[in-house]
Amino acid sequence: MAEENKKPASELRFDLVSKHWVVIATGRARRPETFAKEKSPAKEKNEADKKNCPFCNIETQLPPVLVYPKETDISKKDDSWSLAVIPNKFPAFIQGDSLRERAEGPYSLMDGIGFHEVVVTKDHYSQMAEFPVIKIREVIDAYQERYLELMNEKMVNYISVFHNHGLEAGATIAHPHSQIIAMPVMDPDIKQSLDGSRLFFEMQGKCVHCAKLEWDREDGRRIIFENEKFVALCPFASRVAFEIRIYPKEHHSYFERIKDNDKDQLAEVFRVALGKIFKGLNNPSYNFFLHTGPCDGKNYDHYHWHFDIMPKTSTWAGFELGTGIEISTIEPEKAAEYLRGI
Amino acid sequence: MAEENKKPASELRFDLVSKHWVVIATGRARRPETFAKEKSPAKEKNEADKKNCPFCNIETQLPPVLVYPKETDISKKDDSWSLAVIPNKFPAFIQGDSLRERAEGPYSLMDGIGFHEVVVTKDHYSQMAEFPVIKIREVIDAYQERYLELMNEKMVNYISVFHNHGLEAGATIAHPHSQIIAMPVMDPDIKQSLDGSRLFFEMQGKCVHCAKLEWDREDGRRIIFENEKFVALCPFASRVAFEIRIYPKEHHSYFERIKDNDKDQLAEVFRVALGKIFKGLNNPSYNFFLHTGPCDGKNYDHYHWHFDIMPKTSTWAGFELGTGIEISTIEPEKAAEYLRGI
Repeated sequence: MAEENKKPASELRFDLVSKHWVVIATGRARRPETFAKEKSPAKEKNEADKKNCPFCNIETQLPPVLVYPKETDISKKDDSWSLAVIPNKFPAFIQGDSLRERAEGPYSLMDGIGFHEVVVTKDHYSQMAEFPVIKIREVIDAYQERYLELMNEKMVNYISVFHNHGLEAGATIAHPHSQIIAMPVMDPDIKQSLDGSRLFFEMQGKCVHCAKLEWDREDGRRIIFENEKFVALCPFASRVAFEIRIYPKEHHSYFERIKDNDKDQLAEVFRVALGKIFKGLNNPSYNFFLHTGPCDGKNYDHYHWHFDIMPKTSTWAGFELGTGIEISTIEPEKAAEYLRGI
Repeated sequence: MAEENKKPASELRFDLVSKHWVVIATGRARRPETFAKEKSPAKEKNEADKKNCPFCNIETQLPPVLVYPKETDISKKDDSWSLAVIPNKFPAFIQGDSLRERAEGPYSLMDGIGFHEVVVTKDHYSQMAEFPVIKIREVIDAYQERYLELMNEKMVNYISVFHNHGLEAGATIAHPHSQIIAMPVMDPDIKQSLDGSRLFFEMQGKCVHCAKLEWDREDGRRIIFENEKFVALCPFASRVAFEIRIYPKEHHSYFERIKDNDKDQLAEVFRVALGKIFKGLNNPSYNFFLHTGPCDGKNYDHYHWHFDIMPKTSTWAGFELGTGIEISTIEPEKAAEYLRGI
């Protein structure tokens, strides 16, 4: 049993009724009893000091797939690295050649094949909200470079880029890092959003996000900040209080095709948005993630990529879990007004 | 502004792209600055002692819609009450006669019309996992009695019954309580599950949950406990570690039609399931909720009602928020084996 558990394992199981995928990833080899002992498993790790931080001792991690500056050899304790992308030691998706789709009674499942990488910036204490624009730009460069690489891998049809900050937002390691998961399947929720976007495009002849942006910018009440190329706003149907979306103003479907100059502009808007949350909400925990046209070979020219920042201002409880409906406790118009003033 | 905020307000906003509803409920009248001050708004309230507990001072709450024993008048500080259902002071949905559906630019919204009630059991310290079967039975009686009442209200098409235990599971008041929300709309996720159930029924001539239960009980590995009428198991596609579902063994579509004898049996299985989580996972926070055929007047005879218990064994972070896919870190078969042994 112990032997079997040593090897990271990942399974994708399909829920017949809800039509959702779940991942059963047992790489951390936790035995049932450990759930009882670790009341807050995250806490212990998160409070580990810099000395025991896995990312401050990056040479102990799996060999990197990308390092900035590019010539740095972190395995030799070369301390001149600035950013490193390493494979996750406890991956939710695991490299492999075949999905081995199969049935168990009325159920269907397949191997959790894919890639799970961690984007680490060097400083243990400096979080993204405090980065200068040039450091955020470096993170965006890494997202793009890894996306372009992973999208060409066999079995990869969808790539999720996300960042968890703070214990309440699920960051089990305090050292700032983002994650990239490349996987074979797409959840029906994502498909539904993409179908919604496609349908609007077919019926109205334009992108639904462009239509919303046009109205939001005319209306003004939900806009937080904009520069030449990007805009940050609180969405009309915000899922949580102080949710922020960052959109390219022009219609662009695929994040990975972003141009050099646009990356500087995106970094600036990111800096402003995260800085306003940091100051205005007293350094809250938050998650952000990328939504972009998937890399499954189909056409998503109707889609409009964006980043979504969700401060952890509340806990999803029985109602949200049971109904899928989220309750937010502030009007997005007031949230944006407040953040504009920061 | 302050004046306007005094009155609880609730708005249902529709996301054009994802096709999801969100609720913007501002009844608590929190100004943006308060989000910054209260880093853990829940904590403060939760640690309030028994003396300041709103439910221990139940006569200060809104007049109850139901009290057990039935003759008790809690407004007169009659201390013989055992269970009370009161309207939520800070409702997510508010009573009203019209949804006033309307558009704002490309967006659509309507009033958050409905009912939001709280089911309070008397003892401040005794949680459901520690209740005797007869006390759980009383809670089930209250769920059914209120469901039967609310389902006949105009505007009510869907009723969510749920329970949050512990701070990490979003219980902002420590005193044990459940909640009932009756609302006009159903989220697409629920509709998708119902459609999945209907399609299976039409194609296979039987209920998908019955088919799964048959295989699960034959297979045995995910079963935790069963009595004559109900079974508790870890679902094959569990969304979180140690998720438990409680199903009637026979095909029943509507919880609110449950018979007296079956309520005793359900209470017993609830008692065992919550007790095993309490002991086996060291009194974790958890949510549970009811899924049953909706009350919108349509036929849901294909559906099979059940309760879903989700221990808070992890935090949903950027990946789950961004992709809708959940990662669980233990095989449901091993979780069930462990819980069986408790």
